[in-house]
Amino acid sequence: MDKLEMRHTLLAAKARKKLSWDDIGSAIGMSPVWTASACYGMNSASRAVAHKLCDVLEVDTEVAEALQAFPTKAWDEAIPQDPFIYRLYEVVGVYGETLKDVVQEKFGDGIMSAIDFTMEMDKIEDPKGDRVLLTLNGKFLPYKAW
Amino acid sequence: MDKLEMRHTLLAAKARKKLSWDDIGSAIGMSPVWTASACYGMNSASRAVAHKLCDVLEVDTEVAEALQAFPTKAWDEAIPQDPFIYRLYEVVGVYGETLKDVVQEKFGDGIMSAIDFTMEMDKIEDPKGDRVLLTLNGKFLPYKAW
Amino acid sequence: MDKLEMRHTLLAAKARKKLSWDDIGSAIGMSPVWTASACYGMNSASRAVAHKLCDVLEVDTEVAEALQAFPTKAWDEAIPQDPFIYRLYEVVGVYGETLKDVVQEKFGDGIMSAIDFTMEMDKIEDPKGDRVLLTLNGKFLPYKAW
Amino acid sequence: MDKLEMRHTLLAAKARKKLSWDDIGSAIGMSPVWTASACYGMNSASRAVAHKLCDVLEVDTEVAEALQAFPTKAWDEAIPQDPFIYRLYEVVGVYGETLKDVVQEKFGDGIMSAIDFTMEMDKIEDPKGDRVLLTLNGKFLPYKAW
Amino acid sequence: MDKLEMRHTLLAAKARKKLSWDDIGSAIGMSPVWTASACYGMNSASRAVAHKLCDVLEVDTEVAEALQAFPTKAWDEAIPQDPFIYRLYEVVGVYGETLKDVVQEKFGDGIMSAIDFTMEMDKIEDPKGDRVLLTLNGKFLPYKAW
Amino acid sequence: MDKLEMRHTLLAAKARKKLSWDDIGSAIGMSPVWTASACYGMNSASRAVAHKLCDVLEVDTEVAEALQAFPTKAWDEAIPQDPFIYRLYEVVGVYGETLKDVVQEKFGDGIMSAIDFTMEMDKIEDPKGDRVLLTLNGKFLPYKAW
Amino acid sequence: MDKLEMRHTLLAAKARKKLSWDDIGSAIGMSPVWTASACYGMNSASRAVAHKLCDVLEVDTEVAEALQAFPTKAWDEAIPQDPFIYRLYEVVGVYGETLKDVVQEKFGDGIMSAIDFTMEMDKIEDPKGDRVLLTLNGKFLPYKAW
Amino acid sequence: MDKLEMRHTLLAAKARKKLSWDDIGSAIGMSPVWTASACYGMNSASRAVAHKLCDVLEVDTEVAEALQAFPTKAWDEAIPQDPFIYRLYEVVGVYGETLKDVVQEKFGDGIMSAIDFTMEMDKIEDPKGDRVLLTLNGKFLPYKAW
Amino acid sequence: MDKLEMRHTLLAAKARKKLSWDDIGSAIGMSPVWTASACYGMNSASRAVAHKLCDVLEVDTEVAEALQAFPTKAWDEAIPQDPFIYRLYEVVGVYGETLKDVVQEKFGDGIMSAIDFTMEMDKIEDPKGDRVLLTLNGKFLPYKAW
Amino acid sequence: MDKLEMRHTLLAAKARKKLSWDDIGSAIGMSPVWTASACYGMNSASRAVAHKLCDVLEVDTEVAEALQAFPTKAWDEAIPQDPFIYRLYEVVGVYGETLKDVVQEKFGDGIMSAIDFTMEMDKIEDPKGDRVLLTLNGKFLPYKAW
Repeated sequence: MDKLEMRHTLLAAKARKKLSWDDIGSAIGMSPVWTASACYGMNSASRAVAHKLCDVLEVDTEVAEALQAFPTKAWDEAIPQDPFIYRLYEVVGVYGETLKDVVQEKFGDGIMSAIDFTMEMDKIEDPKGDRVLLTLNGKFLPYKAW
Repeated sequence: MDKLEMRHTLLAAKARKKLSWDDIGSAIGMSPVWTASACYGMNSASRAVAHKLCDVLEVDTEVAEALQAFPTKAWDEAIPQDPFIYRLYEVVGVYGETLKDVVQEKFGDGIMSAIDFTMEMDKIEDPKGDRVLLTLNGKFLPYKAW
Repeated sequence: MDKLEMRHTLLAAKARKKLSWDDIGSAIGMSPVWTASACYGMNSASRAVAHKLCDVLEVDTEVAEALQAFPTKAWDEAIPQDPFIYRLYEVVGVYGETLKDVVQEKFGDGIMSAIDFTMEMDKIEDPKGDRVLLTLNGKFLPYKAW
Repeated sequence: MDKLEMRHTLLAAKARKKLSWDDIGSAIGMSPVWTASACYGMNSASRAVAHKLCDVLEVDTEVAEALQAFPTKAWDEAIPQDPFIYRLYEVVGVYGETLKDVVQEKFGDGIMSAIDFTMEMDKIEDPKGDRVLLTLNGKFLPYKAW
Repeated sequence: MDKLEMRHTLLAAKARKKLSWDDIGSAIGMSPVWTASACYGMNSASRAVAHKLCDVLEVDTEVAEALQAFPTKAWDEAIPQDPFIYRLYEVVGVYGETLKDVVQEKFGDGIMSAIDFTMEMDKIEDPKGDRVLLTLNGKFLPYKAW
Repeated sequence: MDKLEMRHTLLAAKARKKLSWDDIGSAIGMSPVWTASACYGMNSASRAVAHKLCDVLEVDTEVAEALQAFPTKAWDEAIPQDPFIYRLYEVVGVYGETLKDVVQEKFGDGIMSAIDFTMEMDKIEDPKGDRVLLTLNGKFLPYKAW
Repeated sequence: MDKLEMRHTLLAAKARKKLSWDDIGSAIGMSPVWTASACYGMNSASRAVAHKLCDVLEVDTEVAEALQAFPTKAWDEAIPQDPFIYRLYEVVGVYGETLKDVVQEKFGDGIMSAIDFTMEMDKIEDPKGDRVLLTLNGKFLPYKAW
Repeated sequence: MDKLEMRHTLLAAKARKKLSWDDIGSAIGMSPVWTASACYGMNSASRAVAHKLCDVLEVDTEVAEALQAFPTKAWDEAIPQDPFIYRLYEVVGVYGETLKDVVQEKFGDGIMSAIDFTMEMDKIEDPKGDRVLLTLNGKFLPYKAW
Repeated sequence: MDKLEMRHTLLAAKARKKLSWDDIGSAIGMSPVWTASACYGMNSASRAVAHKLCDVLEVDTEVAEALQAFPTKAWDEAIPQDPFIYRLYEVVGVYGETLKDVVQEKFGDGIMSAIDFTMEMDKIEDPKGDRVLLTLNGKFLPYKAW
Repeated sequence: MDKLEMRHTLLAAKARKKLSWDDIGSAIGMSPVWTASACYGMNSASRAVAHKLCDVLEVDTEVAEALQAFPTKAWDEAIPQDPFIYRLYEVVGVYGETLKDVVQEKFGDGIMSAIDFTMEMDKIEDPKGDRVLLTLNGKFLPYKAW
């Protein structure tokens, strides 16, 4: 079973059982964003988490094998088209250079890791319109000189 | 004076006066990320903020005109190359589809605005390596049906 | 049933029943452009509208599920090739910068939303050749400073 | 004097005289969108209009020559980056195929001209947020069979 | 039946009946280039012509439906690779700017329509090597000022 | 003097002397399209023609040297943006495959040369709107088998 | 039978019969490079050669039809990736401009035809490492002035 | 002095002294193609050859330094536009896969080097039109297994 | 059996037999990196090695045929997206120009071969985090002058 | 002084003083590859190293400021053209997927850092042709689950 088939199986099971990512995440002890990304095939799960996930969604253990496989991460479009994802791309374009300066002023020459990295999403209710809060948390990696 | 010349003037003045983005931001009552982005020419400042900024950095009021101009936001590379900015692009590629699902499950069909939008950066000290915390805060905009 | 299959089903039913987008739109109480875009899979319908649409076109309620799903909006070609669509692309290229100036002069720094957005199409009969009238109506979103 | 120099001259004069596109358009008897596009170098003016425009903005008649020159229309980015212009591009991507169907159902096989074409912009005041109204008006051109 | 299947059916019938584009064109009262382009799926036929074409090629009337459908015109390669088609592309690259000047000098600011447009092909016998004669005939459309 | 400087010199002289491409072409015994293309730097002239052209336009004989130089033919945009040139590109996209079939049916496997090639432009007056007539005339080159 | 199926059939037969391109070429009286290119579907064969080829490889005469069809020549990658083919691409990039000068100095303004063109491959044994010798032979085509 | 300035100096000197690449090549004991490519900045010369070349063309010894510098080989266009160079690119596209098979059948798995590589150009006079003969000679490099 | 099917067969067998690349490599007397690349279809094996590999993995000898076939080396993305591979791409971008200078200073004008080339991977255990050691070993090829 | 001017200054000084990267590296206590990359503007130096480097090369201390600036790392070509750099790109394309498997089999799911990273170059003398040895050494970063 490859990641694509795994994903279809997991999303279908999630719909059938009418569970949210919050529900699934708390049932397996992981955050909802990571849980979704593992089900989408963009992260690998440990053996224990993979089996718990299969239990929660009541799918075959063959799926648990697929969840543990190390993914090849890829996306279809160099410039995303869906408006939701494009807005994130636009933020990187508009603020990328600014962030580099603001971060490096504080941390020195280096980057924010996208590997030793976590992300959370929250909903802030607001009478003028609810707001999405995304929190990106990455280890700072200084460039090595040698 | 166009945005590019303005940017060179402001960054030179900042270096000369040895001020950080935190220093400048708190002197003008704005956040450091927004302050940097306005100086880089990616956001326009109100008349009051523009003049305060020029006072703090001791630059000509001609710069204040440039700060108020409405920018044309553009970036050089569809796929960024600098490792700092690329890692952010990679996060959008790897997690974009996941986030769309997680957010829309909670808010309904729509997007997180990149216009009615703010961003903060924090440093979390950690003995295993300090961490960068980026907080993106955008208004949720539901698609209209008509 | 995914959006693509839904679309084929709906367009086939529309052809079979010999209904125009105007007919369908007025039967379900929505505009013809929105109605077409929902059938093409580019917008999601509310539960009520989805079921009304299925009644009008006499298709299975499984289609109503697909109509309510939140779409991933994407288009095949970064630069469209079909002459009808290319002309719209050309208008954006030729007049984009002009419109930005004309709009921002009146509204301040910001954008016209493509999310809180509606569009209508009218036919103007004219002895020298009929004319197409497209009306785009989007909420103005001012950039936030923070 | 080429179109680029002409544009700089005209925009500087407009700023100096503190005139809006509405002001200039009504002074020369043309719409504000067309007036702006001619000053940006994307349309050519008739001899009479070019001279009136130079009178209104008090610029050299050498500029009137440049206004009458037939432009080479081009834009920098196949996919626009500035958020204002990108939103228009997104509308073409999301609704292009839909519009083709809705228009051709009413008019037959053909296109909306981008040459025999006019465009207007209006502001609709609204307590929930003002709205931008763009009206595109193009002659329908049926495909010829031969 | 979509345009692709229609095309395969028509080209197979043409081969089976050993008819040339000239033969088919004169049998249905249309030019050979238009006839070929309609069979390739790049133009729509009127009801009468579609049925005559199906009679000539002795194919099912289902094909006549497909011939009347309004095509989405698209081509695979932004820069064509087949040497025959590339040479035409090269002509546009090498002579495009020149032609624009030569035509606009005679007609004023505007374009040659590719919609109100016809094209013919002739063979000129020549002892030094036969020559291909392509004749493009498009309505001149002046830009509108408004 | 390179081709770019040559072109500026020749176009300025043409404007100064108020000559059309027809005027210049008939003065030097060449067609207007070729004449324009040589002045734009896309074809090289023989020594005799180059000098005649310089005489007609009253420019320095240094220009005659540049006219004789063998050009590097290049164009800025793989997909042209100016509407005049784009329409020609669109014709190649829409009709390229069709033309290949129509021509090869008559001539056998091979191409229409873009080197042993001439092109003419005519204006057809028409009360419903004047028409542009482009005539492309290229030697047929059969593929060699060996 | 299309060119792709033809190619699979021919290459399988060649492997089955353990013939080299030299063997096949000399059996049908054509060069090995042309023979291979016809089998790959990049050149059309005459009726006589097509049938001889089918005899040699003992394949169905249906294949002979496909060999005579006029191919649409295309390649998958604008910039080839396989190291063998990339090296040829690199040679064009590195030496293209140089060759143009060296050839045009000798022949005048024009090109080397890729249509009236042949190519041979030889192996030169050399104790320091064997060498590949490619010979390209194309008719010189002078640009026409008109 | 960089390669670009060197190239302008050498080509100007060559024109001034009315020498052909054959003349220069035989004066310095190198082939005309290599000589041209070194002058264009695509190959580095040994100290001895560089000085001989400067003597022949009577240019400053500063140029000899530039001739010895190791070039960064680059070309402007991934897909060349000039018809002379494009035809070579087309040959690689059309025959690349064929050549790989023909060569590897004779030599085994490997490539023809573009580094340990020479190239010659000859003119073959022919009453039906002169022909260009290009000879590419590259060492065969077998892939290493390890 | 083509390389893709071969690869699926070999990777499935490897998983079934729970062998590592080290295990397989030492069983067939080749390095683990080369062994993996041959199984992925990016290198051809000698007859002896191919058969040993099939014995070790207990697969059909049909696979041994496929292992000996000369591969067409290609990769899906000009700019890789998977983070593991992208980091290697980034190293080439960041250090490519530097390495060229450092190597050519020592070896003269030429390249490091990617054909007469081997590569090894080692794991260096380190309490601060294990390290990956890649060793690339390529023959230096000097440019030939001729 | 920006990185580009810094680079020109440093490379000119290096040439003037006839020092190799080995010489400079050992004089400042850093490796030759890192030293070159800092001089090319692709890495920032500490204050101490920057000043030592300026001493060794006898350049202005203004250069030391530029050496300490945090670089924006970028490269001109997504696909490099210079043969030296292209070969490295090819290695990533051909072996990227293989290496990912070989490394992750040993280390688990994660990447080799290009930030916590060093690289060395050695020359291996060999009578059959000297060899270039590149050693890449990067910290393994496991993906975090959260």
